[in-house]
Amino acid sequence: MTSPVVHADVLVAAERLGEWPVRTPLLNSPALDAICGGRVWLKPENLQHTGSFKFRGAMNRLLAIPPEGRSAGVVAYSSGNHAQGVARAARLLGMRATIIMPSDAPKLKVERTRADGAEVVFYERLTESRERLAAEIAEARGALIVPPFADPLIIAGQGTAGLEAVEQLAALGETADLALTCCGGGGLSGGFAAGSQLPLVVVEPEGYDDVCRSLAAGRILPVENPGHTRCDALQTLVMAEITFATLMHHGAAGVAVSEVQVARAVAFAFRELKLVVEPGGAVTLAALLAGRVDVQGKTVIATLSGGNIDPAVMVDCLREVGALQD
Amino acid sequence: MTSPVVHADVLVAAERLGEWPVRTPLLNSPALDAICGGRVWLKPENLQHTGSFKFRGAMNRLLAIPPEGRSAGVVAYSSGNHAQGVARAARLLGMRATIIMPSDAPKLKVERTRADGAEVVFYERLTESRERLAAEIAEARGALIVPPFADPLIIAGQGTAGLEAVEQLAALGETADLALTCCGGGGLSGGFAAGSQLPLVVVEPEGYDDVCRSLAAGRILPVENPGHTRCDALQTLVMAEITFATLMHHGAAGVAVSEVQVARAVAFAFRELKLVVEPGGAVTLAALLAGRVDVQGKTVIATLSGGNIDPAVMVDCLREVGALQD
Repeated sequence: MTSPVVHADVLVAAERLGEWPVRTPLLNSPALDAICGGRVWLKPENLQHTGSFKFRGAMNRLLAIPPEGRSAGVVAYSSGNHAQGVARAARLLGMRATIIMPSDAPKLKVERTRADGAEVVFYERLTESRERLAAEIAEARGALIVPPFADPLIIAGQGTAGLEAVEQLAALGETADLALTCCGGGGLSGGFAAGSQLPLVVVEPEGYDDVCRSLAAGRILPVENPGHTRCDALQTLVMAEITFATLMHHGAAGVAVSEVQVARAVAFAFRELKLVVEPGGAVTLAALLAGRVDVQGKTVIATLSGGNIDPAVMVDCLREVGALQD
Repeated sequence: MTSPVVHADVLVAAERLGEWPVRTPLLNSPALDAICGGRVWLKPENLQHTGSFKFRGAMNRLLAIPPEGRSAGVVAYSSGNHAQGVARAARLLGMRATIIMPSDAPKLKVERTRADGAEVVFYERLTESRERLAAEIAEARGALIVPPFADPLIIAGQGTAGLEAVEQLAALGETADLALTCCGGGGLSGGFAAGSQLPLVVVEPEGYDDVCRSLAAGRILPVENPGHTRCDALQTLVMAEITFATLMHHGAAGVAVSEVQVARAVAFAFRELKLVVEPGGAVTLAALLAGRVDVQGKTVIATLSGGNIDPAVMVDCLREVGALQD
């Protein structure tokens, strides 16, 4: 079985993207290395445009639209990081972007998406289908729907984070044994595997470990009984065939982390790394701090995939680990 | 008048330091650029070892001690970032470090300094002189006192941040018109001027604007009526002849920012930059956000000099600007 997204696709994406994304640094923390017994290089995509890796995939997809096709604009449905990534990419290319959000979406996310020039269209969660609404708008305008992960150009764009990380490590005279990625629908993870060509462990929050279970079972399994998680960016209910096939081809495995392990990671990032990382962007760090992945004596690259955290959630995490008193 | 620290000193420091410091990235924020009307490149030294630029100067000073002289160790007095920088540098070189701290120093800072293997010696603020205690320990052991800023090797070491920033900007095909630095005793600022060779504006908190006033007056003036500031890293009461002469030679000027402007900058760094920046490390950002320095149409480098903020202080800043409700 060939992979739907391969290394060459990521090389093409990197060339197409050029200087558009932030070349996020690779960061090492002696405190983290001491805890997990390996040498860890963090790829902080919270420092990417709009605060998450999502800009990479969105920009790669939009740049692939021929200039003469750009006037019709793009449509996306998301209340989170993907919406902001698409809105920013569209603005930079002078394209119209329409983002479909639930009518009860957090005000801050609506504002940020509008601040990047996108039109926000609301739908009623209980009575309307966002997919149908997106299709209607797209058809009426001739616009392109930009999916969050089920698209080879999106996946290849996210993968440039992995390609970059490996290049940056090579410049330091090092090579990695393993990569860890934060995983929702598998777009970043699949792209990272293809871009880095490293053995990959995807990390999910407990309860949303459908990718872990799917990779172990060899077939796509959905989330069962979706409950609460503070990792709002990783609440995907089922992965896509394209991300599943890409991850299977690259031999990826998965682990899940608990809510308190995530809180510890968010607090560790704040106190030790001086980085604002959202819960869903800190699951790899959570796995490393909790010893969920054996990295003893290994060199590891781990994504910190986003930083769009509500200050109140940061306060909750700091309190939960005793770093902040009432 | 020649400068006590010149560009060549910083080049030597950079060569001596080699790969020891983190090569912190240069970060650009479209949101910040839109507010201040210039193109701003931030140098986030909060991502440096021990969370501030202080490691650069400390390591440069310690590396300059001949190997045969290292066994006697080093002594420093500081309850803050300098202590941690010296402790970490000493540990990496296998040297003994003694840090003199007030008996009421924050527990966290004592713990962090000890975690880097340093011995902490307490003194009573009201009845003992830390300078005399340091001199006694240094003399008894033959150890070297590492001052926080009044030392050419310390200043040149801090200046490598400026040298790096200019090199990184050149790699992007850009040049800067101006640099802004966070300023306490002037070690980072003097070094940055020498290392970057850029026109420099130093930024201080109101009430501790002695460097601003000294540069304007052409002679060293101390802080008058020291009051409260949340910028604990910038509470230096008087600069040194060497930092004064270096800054005067480079034609530096200064501005002061208010406490609420600093709170806004700390919150902006959290929300927009996804960086944990301490108040004293955010004064440059405060000046830019408040329009205290005219950067219209200019390309600017600004230091974010440290990230060692108590979570409770972060909460205060977020609340003060309305980013967090009780």
